[in-house]
Amino acid sequence: MAPIKKIPVAILGATGAVGQRFVQLLENHPWFEIAILTGSERSIGRPYGEVARWILNDSPSRRVAEMVVQSTSQAGGVPLAFSALPAEQAREAEPAWASAGTVVCSNASAYRMDPLVPLLIPEVNPDHIALIETQRNQRGWTGAIVTNPNCSTITLVMALRPLHDRFGVKQVFATTLQAISGAGYPGVASLDILDNVVPYIGGEEEKIESEPLKLLGTLRDGAVDFAPFRVSASVNRVPVLDGHLVSTSVAFERVPAVEEAIVALRDFTAPDSVRGLPSAPERPIVVREEPDRPQPRRDRDLYNGMGTTVGRVRSCPLLDLKFSVLSHNTIRGAAGGALLNGELLVAEGVIG
Amino acid sequence: MAPIKKIPVAILGATGAVGQRFVQLLENHPWFEIAILTGSERSIGRPYGEVARWILNDSPSRRVAEMVVQSTSQAGGVPLAFSALPAEQAREAEPAWASAGTVVCSNASAYRMDPLVPLLIPEVNPDHIALIETQRNQRGWTGAIVTNPNCSTITLVMALRPLHDRFGVKQVFATTLQAISGAGYPGVASLDILDNVVPYIGGEEEKIESEPLKLLGTLRDGAVDFAPFRVSASVNRVPVLDGHLVSTSVAFERVPAVEEAIVALRDFTAPDSVRGLPSAPERPIVVREEPDRPQPRRDRDLYNGMGTTVGRVRSCPLLDLKFSVLSHNTIRGAAGGALLNGELLVAEGVIG
Amino acid sequence: MAPIKKIPVAILGATGAVGQRFVQLLENHPWFEIAILTGSERSIGRPYGEVARWILNDSPSRRVAEMVVQSTSQAGGVPLAFSALPAEQAREAEPAWASAGTVVCSNASAYRMDPLVPLLIPEVNPDHIALIETQRNQRGWTGAIVTNPNCSTITLVMALRPLHDRFGVKQVFATTLQAISGAGYPGVASLDILDNVVPYIGGEEEKIESEPLKLLGTLRDGAVDFAPFRVSASVNRVPVLDGHLVSTSVAFERVPAVEEAIVALRDFTAPDSVRGLPSAPERPIVVREEPDRPQPRRDRDLYNGMGTTVGRVRSCPLLDLKFSVLSHNTIRGAAGGALLNGELLVAEGVIG
Amino acid sequence: MAPIKKIPVAILGATGAVGQRFVQLLENHPWFEIAILTGSERSIGRPYGEVARWILNDSPSRRVAEMVVQSTSQAGGVPLAFSALPAEQAREAEPAWASAGTVVCSNASAYRMDPLVPLLIPEVNPDHIALIETQRNQRGWTGAIVTNPNCSTITLVMALRPLHDRFGVKQVFATTLQAISGAGYPGVASLDILDNVVPYIGGEEEKIESEPLKLLGTLRDGAVDFAPFRVSASVNRVPVLDGHLVSTSVAFERVPAVEEAIVALRDFTAPDSVRGLPSAPERPIVVREEPDRPQPRRDRDLYNGMGTTVGRVRSCPLLDLKFSVLSHNTIRGAAGGALLNGELLVAEGVIG
Repeated sequence: MAPIKKIPVAILGATGAVGQRFVQLLENHPWFEIAILTGSERSIGRPYGEVARWILNDSPSRRVAEMVVQSTSQAGGVPLAFSALPAEQAREAEPAWASAGTVVCSNASAYRMDPLVPLLIPEVNPDHIALIETQRNQRGWTGAIVTNPNCSTITLVMALRPLHDRFGVKQVFATTLQAISGAGYPGVASLDILDNVVPYIGGEEEKIESEPLKLLGTLRDGAVDFAPFRVSASVNRVPVLDGHLVSTSVAFERVPAVEEAIVALRDFTAPDSVRGLPSAPERPIVVREEPDRPQPRRDRDLYNGMGTTVGRVRSCPLLDLKFSVLSHNTIRGAAGGALLNGELLVAEGVIG
Repeated sequence: MAPIKKIPVAILGATGAVGQRFVQLLENHPWFEIAILTGSERSIGRPYGEVARWILNDSPSRRVAEMVVQSTSQAGGVPLAFSALPAEQAREAEPAWASAGTVVCSNASAYRMDPLVPLLIPEVNPDHIALIETQRNQRGWTGAIVTNPNCSTITLVMALRPLHDRFGVKQVFATTLQAISGAGYPGVASLDILDNVVPYIGGEEEKIESEPLKLLGTLRDGAVDFAPFRVSASVNRVPVLDGHLVSTSVAFERVPAVEEAIVALRDFTAPDSVRGLPSAPERPIVVREEPDRPQPRRDRDLYNGMGTTVGRVRSCPLLDLKFSVLSHNTIRGAAGGALLNGELLVAEGVIG
Repeated sequence: MAPIKKIPVAILGATGAVGQRFVQLLENHPWFEIAILTGSERSIGRPYGEVARWILNDSPSRRVAEMVVQSTSQAGGVPLAFSALPAEQAREAEPAWASAGTVVCSNASAYRMDPLVPLLIPEVNPDHIALIETQRNQRGWTGAIVTNPNCSTITLVMALRPLHDRFGVKQVFATTLQAISGAGYPGVASLDILDNVVPYIGGEEEKIESEPLKLLGTLRDGAVDFAPFRVSASVNRVPVLDGHLVSTSVAFERVPAVEEAIVALRDFTAPDSVRGLPSAPERPIVVREEPDRPQPRRDRDLYNGMGTTVGRVRSCPLLDLKFSVLSHNTIRGAAGGALLNGELLVAEGVIG
Repeated sequence: MAPIKKIPVAILGATGAVGQRFVQLLENHPWFEIAILTGSERSIGRPYGEVARWILNDSPSRRVAEMVVQSTSQAGGVPLAFSALPAEQAREAEPAWASAGTVVCSNASAYRMDPLVPLLIPEVNPDHIALIETQRNQRGWTGAIVTNPNCSTITLVMALRPLHDRFGVKQVFATTLQAISGAGYPGVASLDILDNVVPYIGGEEEKIESEPLKLLGTLRDGAVDFAPFRVSASVNRVPVLDGHLVSTSVAFERVPAVEEAIVALRDFTAPDSVRGLPSAPERPIVVREEPDRPQPRRDRDLYNGMGTTVGRVRSCPLLDLKFSVLSHNTIRGAAGGALLNGELLVAEGVIG
């Protein structure tokens, strides 16, 4: 299923925090090769290495640093694009690229809840890819738009998938402790977050309360029937660099014992089509038994940042079970998630 | 109601983190004067200034620094003591002091749930002082033990009191983001908490799930009938120096509109007997309307650390209302809380 | 020397980080009353409480919050102004205000090294006020410009003054560890400084290497003869909220013993004219003897942030003495420093 | 020069912070295999996985986790040991192991300044290995003790070596900003370092002032003639997890231009015998040209934590040149440094 020669890809909005993660993950990728980098007005026509104020630990390769940034509005030319555009720009640009024949794997929120656009996590709902056909038919595109969820949603849903399958999720309480990298760069001012917590992130709770219902929804007649449970989210920004932690409580149709839930989480495996993808984690979920895990700094890099860690599975006095779940917000929750989507689309023959 | 001459007081366990807060708050107190400082084996017989590794910002006065630390086991000699002892030591020492005629205002958890011991927040349940009479009768003490709640419990219960009075609390979800000072000194290793969160504090969730029921319980026939609601707590340690923040969701008997709840919180006033106490905050609760408050660093010092800040009052998709609430964990939630208890006991004639 | 009725003052650039400190320090000031607040284009004509995104712990009073922000270019109308303008704006606006009859106590760097402008620390070189006469004569102003030094310079020079007086400073090495508040708001991005140090602050080393020579210079024939020693500065930004720490090493004309140096630092007192000013610290310098002080968080608030703490005075294998010195960068090193200058000018009859 | 079969090695003091780094670096090492783990009284006889409270990001392999910890006092049985012992324990135990035939590569300070013991950095002074012969002769050992320097010393000396070779170092000022991991675990209390700097680390300045003279000394007649320059060190602990940053100023015999110094640093290469070792960095030093590098978080992982980064090379108003230099304190500055020493000793035929 691996492509014979590397597929040229574009990164839309390549200079920002998530764009840089795409660059980092796509350098030396076995299937993909960066062919196009797009950026804002002030970057166009200049070498990437000059205009991207690099905030990650490594540096881009010389080849990438010397690539000339092009305009996002000049759509097409590659079969696959990864989008790190802000929502408003994504709203205009992504359909243009899809129309020009490019499959856009987008991290933007603009089209996540569009009924024709798959909101996709390969381990969770790979069958939702089927929406692409309807999308292409109705929109007349040769390309497509596929989205990955919000960085807190994905953390939560990775744990909910196996529990929902076996026990039927009815209600979810999710209180997040989110890393500063989720706000991009420059993002959170240090004066706002050092020795502090900010109990608010604009629009975030709404995403966490709605996206899981689509992700765990059922594909029927070319559309997604939303899952019928309800989510209540409370978000907090904490002084942590990377890694979103979610204190979670869940009520079920059929209440599992703590040990049953742990077994369900441990047994969770991705479909065969996903397991062999280059960016797929060794296992979707690792359950830790120490009382004080998961921890952002110590667990976020699991499986190159693509793994999800669950811990503290225990009874809840109000709902049925409580646990804490964590994943890397800019890898699993953003660039890495979109990349895995792109890989799945190649493996499934949607691209190339 | 103010005493004519200053009342000599003891601080039990004076060298630790909470003990130091007691020292700080009692220097220049209008009613109380530090007369006895007790400490562990290695401190006994040595000047306080030498044995207390001072971790707060100010320094103790020369008078206090030169006081000789005495053994905690040498009970009595003052009408009032503030206890910052660890739970195990408190279990032995506090009854000995009470038996020797001292009223012990204790921050320790040892006797909080003892049916004869008031678990007291002056603004919340001052009538529970009545338990002291039964306590003295049954135990044969001339002193007494009075406790203040866990530092997260108090934060939560300050907000629940006015809501419970008007709307009847049925269910409470509380996810805490707790400051490192709650673990004492040396407490949390910096390697464990810098760029990190620890989703666990031993025994903490149990306290938050049980203490509010006693605090909001009803005094009947010399005993406390526990409030009938249920609490589910999930705790996290975050890299913040002081100030516990609680993401809270509550279900009510009679569901209030958001604005009604805000009015109830704003209207909350302490009984007259409490309002004039030296350490009482100007108001028990301040409600902030900015979307991103309360924040630990910016709100913990409200009313010298004795105020409680509520914000983000909004509807909850699962229960009825969500909000965030914050108070200073080592002042309101520990030494300051016990001190206010002591002041109330003086004003009510229990001491002196 | 205290004015009979409060003097109305302006704060130029009142909405930024230092501007907010001015507001905070001037509320309830015994001599001064905020009469004018100026701000940038987008703020003009709007209430201060709406346009200033308040980043300090307290809130401005209702009176100040309701004051309408006016344009900085509308100069004059008050005898005294405190300037928190950026250097480029200060370069234009401050002469306009001085020309309109206002004495401007400026925290900006624009005119610090102007030969006609006093670079003033009341405890260090109050006689430099004499420059104002020449300034007024040559510029034809009825007002004046007076500046306070860079926030690292003042920390260093407070310790150098008594040592220079007794032993003659020849060479100074100063490595700074500077707080993030020195960069204003939003200033340093949290992604740049959490778990990190940035060994660079643009233009800062040049200021620390030049300003001390003017501050410790000698007034002669209406001009300042610069002190003849040399300074080498290396600056670092560290994840600390407030308080600049300077690791210092000094060579002297006459080499003191460590104890002599400590005595000189301890004996340092401000002139009588300074000691009674409302914002003057109880003593200019406190010398700590613990091996691990001064520390930013524990020592920055000394004397309401106006004190300077010196510690670790010891021999240097290369020069003569080493020590660490600390003060609060946005109080002593900015707004508080300018305020003390304003108070001195009133006491000396330059204003009012 | 690579050994044909893996050499069994011991880790002395394997449960602490540096011991864990040894475990991490030795798992999957191409030449070495962990055969013995020693620990303190309470650990002896128990599985390593149970007694080592793992503080690094990864976990030890199952094989290592199941190894039974043995007593450090049971010396010998392997040709090579890595010591992470505290100085006092090292003083007794290391000679016992050397006497029992083991070559001990020690991170402890106990024997660093012993005239018969090489203080070794492979890229800097590999010829000092010759001391081992005298050591064995005089002590009658079949094993040996070889040490690596203090974690700040090595950072500094990596940059001094090429400069000393070409320009002759005369004087060095070194102000350190050191990471908390340098203090081991639990080490620095979070209450001491969050939003703070501690300007003191016991014994550290003395090491930085003396060790470089031995490291850059000349081997003559089987002994090291110390380099004749002088170092003045001022140390600070900062809230950074890993990576020691040193603000440095140097005076030279022959003063280089800034560009000459940069070329010397860039051209620095390790001897052939060192370059091919498994843990050797690709280059000893990388010089960054951005004005704001090196930074601990962004540069500490260069070449798997074995690289050293220099930046901000510029003129010094007092001495000749200033620069900042950084390396990873628990890898290059501790376990990785000792490991590279062990590899060199194998390659040179001292072991095996």
